[in-house]
Parts: sequence; C-alpha cells; structure tokens
Amino acid sequence: MRFCPFAHRTRLVLTAKGIKHDTININLKDKPDWFLERNPLGLVPTLENPAGEVIYDSPITCDYLEEVYTEKKLLPSSPFGKAQQKMMLEHFSKVTPYFYKIPMGRKNGEDVSALEGELKEKFAKLNEDLVNKKTKFFGGDSITMIDYMMWPWFERLEIFELKHCLDGTPELKKWTERMLEDTAVKATMHSVDTYKAFYKTYVEGKPNYDYGL
Amino acid sequence: MRFCPFAHRTRLVLTAKGIKHDTININLKDKPDWFLERNPLGLVPTLENPAGEVIYDSPITCDYLEEVYTEKKLLPSSPFGKAQQKMMLEHFSKVTPYFYKIPMGRKNGEDVSALEGELKEKFAKLNEDLVNKKTKFFGGDSITMIDYMMWPWFERLEIFELKHCLDGTPELKKWTERMLEDTAVKATMHSVDTYKAFYKTYVEGKPNYDYGL
Repeated sequence: MRFCPFAHRTRLVLTAKGIKHDTININLKDKPDWFLERNPLGLVPTLENPAGEVIYDSPITCDYLEEVYTEKKLLPSSPFGKAQQKMMLEHFSKVTPYFYKIPMGRKNGEDVSALEGELKEKFAKLNEDLVNKKTKFFGGDSITMIDYMMWPWFERLEIFELKHCLDGTPELKKWTERMLEDTAVKATMHSVDTYKAFYKTYVEGKPNYDYGL
Repeated sequence: MRFCPFAHRTRLVLTAKGIKHDTININLKDKPDWFLERNPLGLVPTLENPAGEVIYDSPITCDYLEEVYTEKKLLPSSPFGKAQQKMMLEHFSKVTPYFYKIPMGRKNGEDVSALEGELKEKFAKLNEDLVNKKTKFFGGDSITMIDYMMWPWFERLEIFELKHCLDGTPELKKWTERMLEDTAVKATMHSVDTYKAFYKTYVEGKPNYDYGL
C-alpha cells in the first residue's frame, strides 16, 4: 500500500541498498486471494524472495534485507550496536500510535491537546537523545537503519497537522531536514498534496489507494 | 523479577547457553534508583554486560546473547530461518495478553469463555504449525530460540487455570511435554505451589517477590 508508513520502511531499505525488486500494490480493503495465501495476516509490507519464501512485518523484512544484501550495511556490526538500534525502535513503537489517535480524535471533534502534549514529550526524548549523542543521525553521523525505521512518520507530520509538535525540539527538526537530503528518502517520498488527497479519501472511509498513479 | 515470564526468557537463554552471570532480583513495586538509572523504562529483564552496557526488552536481550555467545547456537544461520523465528514470535505476541486478561477477568467475576475460546484458537494455530512442520519443536527437531521465547507462558498454564485450553491440541501438548525434559527448562522452573503462592499475593495487590527464597 503506497501510503502505508510501515511499507515505507521496507521501500526505504530496498532503495537505500539498491536492491532490484518489483512492487505490487495491494488494495487493503479488498485483498486478493493470492496475497492472503502468501500472508494469512494480510498485512503490508510483505516480501517474497526469489525462492518464493515470504517475509512480513516491517522490521523483520528490513532485518532480512540487511542480512541478505550486505554490500551497503545499515546496521552496526557489534552486537551491542544492533541491540541499541532495536531498543530505539522499541521506544519509537510508542510514538507511532499518536499519528492515528490524534487525527482520528480531531475528526471526531475531541480535544486532542493532551495527546499532542504526550507526543511532544516523546519528541523531546528523541531530541535529548540526539543532543546527548552529538551525532547527526540516531545511529551516528550517517544514516543507519533506525533513521529509516522512524522516518515515514516524520514525512507525514504535515499531512496529519502535527508539524508544530517539532517546535520545541530543534535537534530533531534538524534531523528531519538532514533526512530530506537523503537519496532514498527523496526517491520514496510522496508530495504533501498527494498525501493530503489520499488521506482525505481514507478518513472518508473510501481510500483511493491508486491516487496519483 | 523471579516470576516474570519475560525475564524467564532471558534466564532460559542464559542457562541453555551456559553463560556465567549474576542475577539481581528487583522489587517491581519499589524499584531501586540504581536500576532506574540503568534502564529508565524500569522493566525486566535488563542485562548489563561486563563493559557496563545495558540491554533490555526480552527478545533484544536474547538476540544479544545469541550474537555474543556463539558456542551453542539457538537461532538458524540462514536469514530466512531467522526471519521465520521472528515472525513466529510476532504471532506469539498476540497470545501472551490472554494470560493476563483471563485471570483478571475471572477475578472480577466476568464471563471469560469468549476469551478462552480465542486463546484455544491461537493454540489450534500453533498446533497446526507443528503438524504441518512434522517437527518436535517449533524450529526443527531440536529446541531453538522460539521454543524458549514461548515456553514461560506454557509453564504458567496450570497456575492460571488454563491447562484445559490444550485439550484440543495434542501436538502442542506433546511439545510442552518435550520442553519439560529440557535441562534449561528444568533449571529455571518454579514449582506449581511456589507459583500459586506468589500469584495469590500478586492478585491481592501485594506481590511477595521473594516468595520461596
């Protein structure tokens, strides 16, 4: 699904590593049988390798690609370095639900200021992390896996009207600016207009997954 | 925390791999400062390696130990084999909440038959998995990481009065019997009486973490 942030993670890794691949988009409201046969959970992203083996769940697909395509490494080689990336991802998994809860709350006319406050706190922690590390990215001075795992939600900040949540976190904001210069980020990105048009159809309950094709 | 199923995962891996280690038990209702300084999330299991580096979250600690202590391998060497184990773990993460929801529901006098039905369905899937694979364990004919990741909840079936949920899943039941023969399982296990006594104090809101010491 072209607009799914989880599938976006895998698209970023495939692109960053220069892995030749075909992309098959799925209508998540009407999943084809051939897809459900391969992945009974029916979730994207789902990878199929040349041997016909199927891999799903975004961090699992990305780790798989990292292990198989070793030319451009995205993970550190030390066991502790790898563990650190996984711990950061675990922390970040508490951030992503706000990108659903806040827009849905607004749609239902609820007061979302408390939720926005919580998201800002999470962003403050990420900001602090960059300040303490004194690095340009979350795994060092160049992009590593964790940056790509987090990026899809930051690319969607404007569409979800959450960009002001970055106001108090200058280092994190700088990180988003650095990310925007990355080739894989540029290559996998949708325009704000395209996102807005898609999410309008999504919120209305009739997602136009092919929007912009 | 001696009775925590997540910490139990790490204890199993440490034991199975014969890794020399010290265990420091934490009172989860009154966490010591030195612990919170090391892991701000305050969760068990938390590992500290000889370099003073801290690793937490049970699958992350176990993967770390697997990478550092390579003599007895618990994960397959192929990238797809590793991905399969992670996918099984992801599926299993939908099982563990029932071990909290069902006992708590019963405590509150609720009808938990629907929840039990759901748990039985999950067990049926695991059973089917073993039948299809025709193997003794989930990763082959010998114990691998995924078996240890799942085991702690099965060890607690009787204490949570959920043993009858295995009645319709003979292969899964046989797997639990095979697991009981494993040296690491035996070495890290508590008696049913000890568990029952501990969980009584837990449900009453005053957990006696030191019970049986």
